Amino acid sequence: MADDTAASAELDRARAGDPRALARLLSLVEDESPRVRSVIKDLMPGTGGARIIGLTGAPGVGKSTMTSALVAAFRADRARVAVLAIDPSSPFTGGALLGDRIRMQAHAIDDRVFIRSMASRGHLGGLATSTPQAIRVLDAAGFDPIIVETVGVGQAEVAIASLADSVAVLLAPGMGDAIQAAKAGILEAADLFVVNKADKPDAQQVVRDLRTMIALGERRHGDWKPPIVTTVAVKGDGIDELVSRLDEHWSWLATTGELKRRRQARAREELTALAFAALRGRLAASRLDELAGRVADGTLDPFEAADELLGR
Amino acid sequence: MADDTAASAELDRARAGDPRALARLLSLVEDESPRVRSVIKDLMPGTGGARIIGLTGAPGVGKSTMTSALVAAFRADRARVAVLAIDPSSPFTGGALLGDRIRMQAHAIDDRVFIRSMASRGHLGGLATSTPQAIRVLDAAGFDPIIVETVGVGQAEVAIASLADSVAVLLAPGMGDAIQAAKAGILEAADLFVVNKADKPDAQQVVRDLRTMIALGERRHGDWKPPIVTTVAVKGDGIDELVSRLDEHWSWLATTGELKRRRQARAREELTALAFAALRGRLAASRLDELAGRVADGTLDPFEAADELLGR
Repeated sequence: MADDTAASAELDRARAGDPRALARLLSLVEDESPRVRSVIKDLMPGTGGARIIGLTGAPGVGKSTMTSALVAAFRADRARVAVLAIDPSSPFTGGALLGDRIRMQAHAIDDRVFIRSMASRGHLGGLATSTPQAIRVLDAAGFDPIIVETVGVGQAEVAIASLADSVAVLLAPGMGDAIQAAKAGILEAADLFVVNKADKPDAQQVVRDLRTMIALGERRHGDWKPPIVTTVAVKGDGIDELVSRLDEHWSWLATTGELKRRRQARAREELTALAFAALRGRLAASRLDELAGRVADGTLDPFEAADELLGR
Repeated sequence: MADDTAASAELDRARAGDPRALARLLSLVEDESPRVRSVIKDLMPGTGGARIIGLTGAPGVGKSTMTSALVAAFRADRARVAVLAIDPSSPFTGGALLGDRIRMQAHAIDDRVFIRSMASRGHLGGLATSTPQAIRVLDAAGFDPIIVETVGVGQAEVAIASLADSVAVLLAPGMGDAIQAAKAGILEAADLFVVNKADKPDAQQVVRDLRTMIALGERRHGDWKPPIVTTVAVKGDGIDELVSRLDEHWSWLATTGELKRRRQARAREELTALAFAALRGRLAASRLDELAGRVADGTLDPFEAADELLGR
């Protein structure tokens, strides 16, 4: 098909370093175009090499500044670095807020750095199925590492963060403390903790709280104990140590077989999300409306209604 | 069946005001017991009367204090008030954090106030299907209003907030500003805005930012313009105005037909979630592992894998 040929040529251009070709492929993914299938099928064999680093934390902890500092550190090693920033969509912006991206402009003229914001279009299923495809496109185009930056404030965002091989959770003093982060469920996703804005008075208290919670928490990481790195991202302080710790985690993933296990678990999540998306299409909308009306009236219980919706 | 008879008797006791019977019914719901089906079927005809108020906002804005103040205000009108506090689960707590509930102890000996924390057990699907049942149990037991309090920091939490007839979004100065709230996607869920901690210096700036964003935002609320109420919940300041605004919204919902429309939309969401939960059970785990392994290896693309998982 002409479309398939076009997508394949686009992929070749993206591999050769054409940022516009890459941007168009990512737009296909973000728009959930039917063409995504053939694009992903084509590029699958060239994927799996890139290291995926997740960076998450509550609004205001300094994720964008940290991402920018990490990009600079990886660029110093001559890596081609991609940043995928996942923003919840909002009616006020029609998608990604650009304000936070301003700090990234330092890298805007560097053609070995690619930065992309992805919005969720208001449904979580979309991000769950499209983010892995966006990562594959960047991977196939030769970017390594790929930094996935998310506003990590809820379980859905934690799920997105877990698309990464290594997840760094950012905290900062005064931005809602570590206990609030625990409530939001983001601590359990962490392979590394970063206490940013470490020059602020309460930073050491955040570190102490974290230590306590790590000690109390269940281990889901085998023999990996999440380190705590303190940083002042705006000044570049602590970034070298963060990169070293990320490198250590990457080595640990490879030597223990955890990388393979983790990527398989991710594929399982992805397949489940894709299967659900396919099934969603099978639910007849008109029947749903009728049954929902009866449930809203109180004349039918929701479980029977769901049974009827699925044709028993 | 004996189980059904027991559940029915439990419901009678809950209706008569026995808090332990009510707690047991809610435990069935939270544990996703198979008995929930018959309980809900029994109580469906007695539901739909209660007004459901959603209260959401980022960690630290003062939701628990506000909930407590609202409970006191509604109790002054001799209402039977229930609070359903939805907490993300955490490995550090095994479920709901109790710390925030301490402020609610003022109501602990009032038998016309019922307070329940529900944890999500680590999966969003569980909350999406169990929260509506918990609300039905409280509704059938005669509580009105029912306040659903959630940590509103991501889209999943917004989805939970939208289980309510009226959603109040709390903000506070210095807790991540209104723009960050917009990023997290919670502003669009709001029927009312509450700027709490209004005695703090930056409160008026939050109000101004909100006004700007409301003016810029799309209207999903028909001719309802979300009001902004300023409060100092710990002192009780502004609570009377908040209650008045909630009452206005409730009247608006009833007179415009929006209440019916909104409840039908909610039933649609619930049915979809229940249908997905049923379908999840049909996906064979062993087949999923095998296909996920091939996707992780790069030897199969995820879309073909999903097709195979569903048996084409």
